[in-house]
Amino acid sequence: MKPITLQELAQHGPTAPKKWTAINGIVYDLTSFQHPGGDSLIARIMGKNGSLDYNKAHQKQLVHEVLGNKIVGSLEASLTTPEAVDDEQTTLLTSEKPNISTMINTFDFEAIAKVLLAPEAWAYYSSGADDEVCLRENRLVFARLRLVPRVMINVSVINMQTTMLGCASSIPLYLSATALGRLAHEDGELAITKAGFNSQVLYMLPTLSSYSLDEMLRSRHPTQQVFSQLYVNADRQRTKEYCEALAKAGNVKALFVTVDAPQLGRREKDMRMKFGIKADVQQEDNNVPKDEGVTRSISSFIDPNLNWDDLPWLKSLGLPIVLKGIQCKEDALLAFEHGLAGIVLSNHGGRQIDGARSGLEVLGEVMPMLRLMKGYNKDKFQVFVDGGIRRGADIFKALALGARAVGIGRPVLYALASYGQPGVEKMLSIFKSELEMTMRLMGTRSIQDILQSHVIATQLTSGNGGSLKDYMLDSLYEPLQTQAQRVGFGATKPTSKM
Amino acid sequence: MKPITLQELAQHGPTAPKKWTAINGIVYDLTSFQHPGGDSLIARIMGKNGSLDYNKAHQKQLVHEVLGNKIVGSLEASLTTPEAVDDEQTTLLTSEKPNISTMINTFDFEAIAKVLLAPEAWAYYSSGADDEVCLRENRLVFARLRLVPRVMINVSVINMQTTMLGCASSIPLYLSATALGRLAHEDGELAITKAGFNSQVLYMLPTLSSYSLDEMLRSRHPTQQVFSQLYVNADRQRTKEYCEALAKAGNVKALFVTVDAPQLGRREKDMRMKFGIKADVQQEDNNVPKDEGVTRSISSFIDPNLNWDDLPWLKSLGLPIVLKGIQCKEDALLAFEHGLAGIVLSNHGGRQIDGARSGLEVLGEVMPMLRLMKGYNKDKFQVFVDGGIRRGADIFKALALGARAVGIGRPVLYALASYGQPGVEKMLSIFKSELEMTMRLMGTRSIQDILQSHVIATQLTSGNGGSLKDYMLDSLYEPLQTQAQRVGFGATKPTSKM
Amino acid sequence: MKPITLQELAQHGPTAPKKWTAINGIVYDLTSFQHPGGDSLIARIMGKNGSLDYNKAHQKQLVHEVLGNKIVGSLEASLTTPEAVDDEQTTLLTSEKPNISTMINTFDFEAIAKVLLAPEAWAYYSSGADDEVCLRENRLVFARLRLVPRVMINVSVINMQTTMLGCASSIPLYLSATALGRLAHEDGELAITKAGFNSQVLYMLPTLSSYSLDEMLRSRHPTQQVFSQLYVNADRQRTKEYCEALAKAGNVKALFVTVDAPQLGRREKDMRMKFGIKADVQQEDNNVPKDEGVTRSISSFIDPNLNWDDLPWLKSLGLPIVLKGIQCKEDALLAFEHGLAGIVLSNHGGRQIDGARSGLEVLGEVMPMLRLMKGYNKDKFQVFVDGGIRRGADIFKALALGARAVGIGRPVLYALASYGQPGVEKMLSIFKSELEMTMRLMGTRSIQDILQSHVIATQLTSGNGGSLKDYMLDSLYEPLQTQAQRVGFGATKPTSKM
Amino acid sequence: MKPITLQELAQHGPTAPKKWTAINGIVYDLTSFQHPGGDSLIARIMGKNGSLDYNKAHQKQLVHEVLGNKIVGSLEASLTTPEAVDDEQTTLLTSEKPNISTMINTFDFEAIAKVLLAPEAWAYYSSGADDEVCLRENRLVFARLRLVPRVMINVSVINMQTTMLGCASSIPLYLSATALGRLAHEDGELAITKAGFNSQVLYMLPTLSSYSLDEMLRSRHPTQQVFSQLYVNADRQRTKEYCEALAKAGNVKALFVTVDAPQLGRREKDMRMKFGIKADVQQEDNNVPKDEGVTRSISSFIDPNLNWDDLPWLKSLGLPIVLKGIQCKEDALLAFEHGLAGIVLSNHGGRQIDGARSGLEVLGEVMPMLRLMKGYNKDKFQVFVDGGIRRGADIFKALALGARAVGIGRPVLYALASYGQPGVEKMLSIFKSELEMTMRLMGTRSIQDILQSHVIATQLTSGNGGSLKDYMLDSLYEPLQTQAQRVGFGATKPTSKM
Repeated sequence: MKPITLQELAQHGPTAPKKWTAINGIVYDLTSFQHPGGDSLIARIMGKNGSLDYNKAHQKQLVHEVLGNKIVGSLEASLTTPEAVDDEQTTLLTSEKPNISTMINTFDFEAIAKVLLAPEAWAYYSSGADDEVCLRENRLVFARLRLVPRVMINVSVINMQTTMLGCASSIPLYLSATALGRLAHEDGELAITKAGFNSQVLYMLPTLSSYSLDEMLRSRHPTQQVFSQLYVNADRQRTKEYCEALAKAGNVKALFVTVDAPQLGRREKDMRMKFGIKADVQQEDNNVPKDEGVTRSISSFIDPNLNWDDLPWLKSLGLPIVLKGIQCKEDALLAFEHGLAGIVLSNHGGRQIDGARSGLEVLGEVMPMLRLMKGYNKDKFQVFVDGGIRRGADIFKALALGARAVGIGRPVLYALASYGQPGVEKMLSIFKSELEMTMRLMGTRSIQDILQSHVIATQLTSGNGGSLKDYMLDSLYEPLQTQAQRVGFGATKPTSKM
Repeated sequence: MKPITLQELAQHGPTAPKKWTAINGIVYDLTSFQHPGGDSLIARIMGKNGSLDYNKAHQKQLVHEVLGNKIVGSLEASLTTPEAVDDEQTTLLTSEKPNISTMINTFDFEAIAKVLLAPEAWAYYSSGADDEVCLRENRLVFARLRLVPRVMINVSVINMQTTMLGCASSIPLYLSATALGRLAHEDGELAITKAGFNSQVLYMLPTLSSYSLDEMLRSRHPTQQVFSQLYVNADRQRTKEYCEALAKAGNVKALFVTVDAPQLGRREKDMRMKFGIKADVQQEDNNVPKDEGVTRSISSFIDPNLNWDDLPWLKSLGLPIVLKGIQCKEDALLAFEHGLAGIVLSNHGGRQIDGARSGLEVLGEVMPMLRLMKGYNKDKFQVFVDGGIRRGADIFKALALGARAVGIGRPVLYALASYGQPGVEKMLSIFKSELEMTMRLMGTRSIQDILQSHVIATQLTSGNGGSLKDYMLDSLYEPLQTQAQRVGFGATKPTSKM
Repeated sequence: MKPITLQELAQHGPTAPKKWTAINGIVYDLTSFQHPGGDSLIARIMGKNGSLDYNKAHQKQLVHEVLGNKIVGSLEASLTTPEAVDDEQTTLLTSEKPNISTMINTFDFEAIAKVLLAPEAWAYYSSGADDEVCLRENRLVFARLRLVPRVMINVSVINMQTTMLGCASSIPLYLSATALGRLAHEDGELAITKAGFNSQVLYMLPTLSSYSLDEMLRSRHPTQQVFSQLYVNADRQRTKEYCEALAKAGNVKALFVTVDAPQLGRREKDMRMKFGIKADVQQEDNNVPKDEGVTRSISSFIDPNLNWDDLPWLKSLGLPIVLKGIQCKEDALLAFEHGLAGIVLSNHGGRQIDGARSGLEVLGEVMPMLRLMKGYNKDKFQVFVDGGIRRGADIFKALALGARAVGIGRPVLYALASYGQPGVEKMLSIFKSELEMTMRLMGTRSIQDILQSHVIATQLTSGNGGSLKDYMLDSLYEPLQTQAQRVGFGATKPTSKM
Repeated sequence: MKPITLQELAQHGPTAPKKWTAINGIVYDLTSFQHPGGDSLIARIMGKNGSLDYNKAHQKQLVHEVLGNKIVGSLEASLTTPEAVDDEQTTLLTSEKPNISTMINTFDFEAIAKVLLAPEAWAYYSSGADDEVCLRENRLVFARLRLVPRVMINVSVINMQTTMLGCASSIPLYLSATALGRLAHEDGELAITKAGFNSQVLYMLPTLSSYSLDEMLRSRHPTQQVFSQLYVNADRQRTKEYCEALAKAGNVKALFVTVDAPQLGRREKDMRMKFGIKADVQQEDNNVPKDEGVTRSISSFIDPNLNWDDLPWLKSLGLPIVLKGIQCKEDALLAFEHGLAGIVLSNHGGRQIDGARSGLEVLGEVMPMLRLMKGYNKDKFQVFVDGGIRRGADIFKALALGARAVGIGRPVLYALASYGQPGVEKMLSIFKSELEMTMRLMGTRSIQDILQSHVIATQLTSGNGGSLKDYMLDSLYEPLQTQAQRVGFGATKPTSKM
């Protein structure tokens, strides 16, 4: 929807040829609209935010029915009057988008994005594989770790800085590759790139981007270092050219090769949607069927033949190689033995195979094994983890279990969808604020102070899968009833007040 | 409420001096009632069941408001016309009490009783101690035992007969003592006594009965054997006289001394009610304060001094002694060592101390210990269990763990409240039907075929307490919200159809 | 309900002698109907789908009340106009049955069947024993197994083919015997037979079929192999004749003898229904009481005397014998020692004895024991499992634990009820698509690649029973309240926005 | 709100210059109010409780809108007419605050406080850190301990008296320091001080009090002993002066130094509120930003440098030192080795770091270790615990695990908010009544009778965190739907009555 500023709106007052008003964030053209109660009733809101007047008189949904075909655009959020934001009652009545300053955790952005995103985009971003057990487990696993705070430690200064793959970062977190950023916001990957630089956080450029690789690389600050994701193309020459472009641009410090997606997963919410969005996918392939949701439309080029024998070729592409999507200690060991730069323990955000373990749970299995390996050096073989990171305390938990850093995916898209580049920066500042507090309350002054002993991980592998709500079963199952309930006997008796 | 037959009702037709009608099971006197729409509208339902006519025209609750002061009684359930029962649609409309033949499990009676009982009676019967965790756990523990059915066994004939304390029983189940039976039904303990005889099931006469001990004893069939519960009175002479009366009456085969109630528990639902019911309590004590619910009103005579040193005196009362309310292996052992006839593992229906274990869980601890005891003989020291028995399979599980038989309490009261004596008999026939099927499907032809190997009890002590819903916490806790939810942003957006 | 095509409907336009319209999928005869607003209002929808017009003006339920006695049939789903299917808004308004092409998982069929089936049929198919803990556990157990995907394996080609009992199958899955197929669809077992052939999947012909054995056998493709279920009849001669008919027809490759049902279980939802359906049951027995639901009506012929001594006789019937309904390792061992062809680990879809373990859980106990047995050969003694299979990943999990193949029951009936034979075929194609993806993402190219190490089964026996919702308890239990809640203090205070 | 007695109200009848009425507990000035229906309609309620009349005619919320600016005060609860209290129906209609005599557990006060408190105060008191898992876990952990009652013990007399840090107490419980008592009630800490004396319970004076230290100390009974909490100030001189004032006042018996709050936690409910309350905070600091909720406004003075090297200085302040906020056995050991008087195992009411363990869980880890320590003496190094104590049985459980006594925080504030000083006293009498009953039913006559063997603690560390509801996830997650549900197919079909 076209964003409209208050200034533009003001040019469409009661005497202008085109008369507009804004109601609950949407701008309508009332030029030809006749109010049943007379024109004078609406003249006063022409060229202004008419939400308060409207809401006093009408149900909110009425405007959609009556003026649904007269929408001009949406009132630009950053221009909503500050007074309106401060006055909570007004905010409530007009249902304008909350001011970015009221965002206090990462979930706040998700809730905004859920409202603003097109249904297809929301379905594509938020969906997971099959019954989405894995998707939810990714989040819930963090609550199974208990924290053990230490007290009486001087924590006046907290230092969260670290390095990953030789690059400095203000916090042990990177922005993971996510496909189709323009489904979230017009500025897509370019906004993420800039927010990463401003926040001193590394970004892993996606293969399935909305902007071209060249556009992403050029949008960087001249000194900005980035990583690059790689889906290996069935046409290996294409992949080779892709990596040459990376090398030519410079300051691309590692290649994260996605290995958990020889075929992109069944994401049913996405499948139920039609592919009807104009975002450009940079990996063009015209043979993709158009009726299986976003996921199926974009994945056909991925090479299912990729295997360990391809590693020499991958290494020959000239960048440090990190395998993204390792899910057990056996494969972690293979990656280590092949002399790679690192791995990402990940189940692809719960989007590939339902029932897989969360990256965090696999981390608890991988690190003890790695530490026993001859030649293992945590700086030379770095272990990352992603999936479900939503709190600063989650980063702390992952580091306590041995991760070098964590990747975040959906939170970036949700912040981007909510407020563009400033949203991503705000979201990152919240992570920093939360991690700083966690480190202070845990009695850890720097990243290297964070130890396994700061967490109790005995429940890590206890398996939440079995107790997670099964929505399909629940929605189809009809509860047993007693005969009295079945025939309604006593249904009119007031509940006794015990 | 006074039960009124259809015959009686018919004598109050449109030409009788007193004009009655029945609406949804309640009989009203309409003699002086003027219908706003004219008398002719109601003349046709005088002397008849007017439910259908009424329900077509009015909301069900209206009649309570308009005619609440003209109630004559309730239409007797056993006389509702058979056609009405067969025609389910009619049953639903008129909300008449379901016919007893439609009861298929014990919960069915509870649902009926919940409607029919006075709020005070329902509160007294259904309540448990404190947060009622124990009350609910008593039921849920049975689901933690898994059954191991054996197949390819000739199960054409199933024999459920057993003996307890030397008395024959058609099923390994007895009717436990419950206080104040007349809160459930006018016939109170007398109906239970008779139902017990008809069903060949033993009844444990309660101390806190609605009818006098003498009335209960006299209501027995001449050959009927019973047990007797005993709350030891602070005035020991009173207890002595009580037992002498039992001995004199004859055929009282054991004394079940309640040992878990030196003070009756805090049952909050009951406490919130006022004691306002006319049922006579046979243990009269005029010093009881009248404002703390039924429980507090009836318990002050119980002797908190009772202890193991009293056993010689208890034995001297002349009857086999069973201690009711044992809750750990240490006390079970003491009872065994004191040469008693048996014990009941019980937490008093979850009514005494919240957080106690269920009788079934304690059974799993007690039996392995007892079997190691020198001189232990399962016929000479019998172990009973009560609490939460609602299915035939529950009886099977208790027997597999080593119980001689199970006691049931609330189901008796609920069946009694629903349909009087026939209700108790029907409820017992359901237990028999369910146990027979369970035994057949488990491949066990008789009680002695039921073995520990028929159940998997590894989850028995896994502690449901910690995962049971905490109603107090839940009702007071306010969920966290995101900012968007808090200010209602997007609240009018239709849910996306994913 | 009679299916009516759009062509037929069109022949009943405003000038035809019989005037029809279709409203929300149901065809009504409006010939003699007088619309309160005048005939012209309905003339325009005669001979057409009038849903849109109707829905704009009326509540959906009104038509049932007004025209409930004028139903002609149902608008045939496959003939709904493609435009209507593509236009989701229209689909929603008219609530026509979704097009079969929109089915993407097996639950989709269940949801359709739940709407289309007669209440008695739905109750019969969907119900389980007692509290239905076992029924739900059958589904939930699969979520307790975690998958361990392996990466960097060439998975361009996936082969799902296997054999069972010497017969080839396109997927390790067979269609289990289910009673009374015509409750689901007019074509009943005949449609299942044909769908099995078209999908290269084996069908186990049911004893309690709607069509006669002869009709089922004749409906096969000339080369089609099948299995046959067997309830042993108390009159053994009847069983002998049944098997002779199987032998005579040819291409019946195994006899699956149901051993978990000496008596059919208590399925309360079914019991609460009256037996009022005209489907013919092929095991006629006129002594069955007519008032205990479908289950009780059809089971009285089953022989409760069947035992291990009958095995020589069973073997003499001339077909490889598989025992269906084994539920513990002891009985599995007996079956193995008796030299049978295999077993089905099954609790009869949770329909026999509540509290039994799922087939999958028993599989985890049986396979390690079998592998230790001298002479055990997985091709000569095949272990099948059924119960709760709803996803391709479920098949994978069962195979990883050692099953030869899985049986599916209810999904067949639900697909049949939804779309007839094409529904069953579509449902099977979904299973294939899901299993193929699971195998690819797990890094397993063929059935023999699937190993125990692909799953983590530590939670398999952790016992969900104890934490499953107890609907009876929950529906009857009244939550505790604080005094303020009880008297409504503060009930009108708006919730604070925290 | 100013409390107004019925006597005062009566002086403002229809002929008085100022005309008042009380509606649902609030007193309004109607002098200048014109009722649309004429003055006579309201004349009759002038000077009286007009709730019944009002409620018969109007929706409850109307009065807030119409007379919200005419509030005089609140009708004093203790003066509501006894008849109104006895007549439950009336109580319900008028929604007057329930009489204090109807409070039967500590949750009752919380429910009242939730209604009466200003939103900001409720948010500040009730909130916890981040996702509030820790906050809820604090309560739920108690249900994971099972009680093992012993029977046949003479429990006619129960003695709950104990000492802590040399001070006598009527019950093993103290009133913990809580900030800003005047947010709850005008009398704030002064009322708590007096209630503590009347109930023979010790009070720990808070540093962040609403009344000055001097006012609190002076409000004591001349012989009353108290403890004092201490947040160490970044300006150590301030702290020194604070302790000198304590010493000078006398009868301050210990200093509880809060060590878990180098920074006050993120409490999101509180953050979402603006700091808009006039309660005076005694630790003035003008540099606090005013927009981050109560918590952030009051915490900036706390010294994050505090560490074990400061202990000599802390000891030099002249009072026995107890460290409040110890959360693991390592720190408990350090405190013991530094020769302190004791520790409080606490996670600060779940307000500091989410994911920390409850004090009770830490207690189960600390006590076995301490008992092995050379020189450990439970009288010389006392271990306290707080967090989630709401029942007498909770105190029992803590003592059984080894605690000297428990601290309670929020219940004090809620009782204070509900009924002022009498509320706190009533709340304490409930704790005493519950603990007495628990001790009697457990067979323990005095505090020293309470042993580890009275509880089963095997589930103590089983980790509820992982199964607690995740409100953020739940509120944002959209359940999967089948296609039929998605398009509303069958939505109008009545639910089948199974």
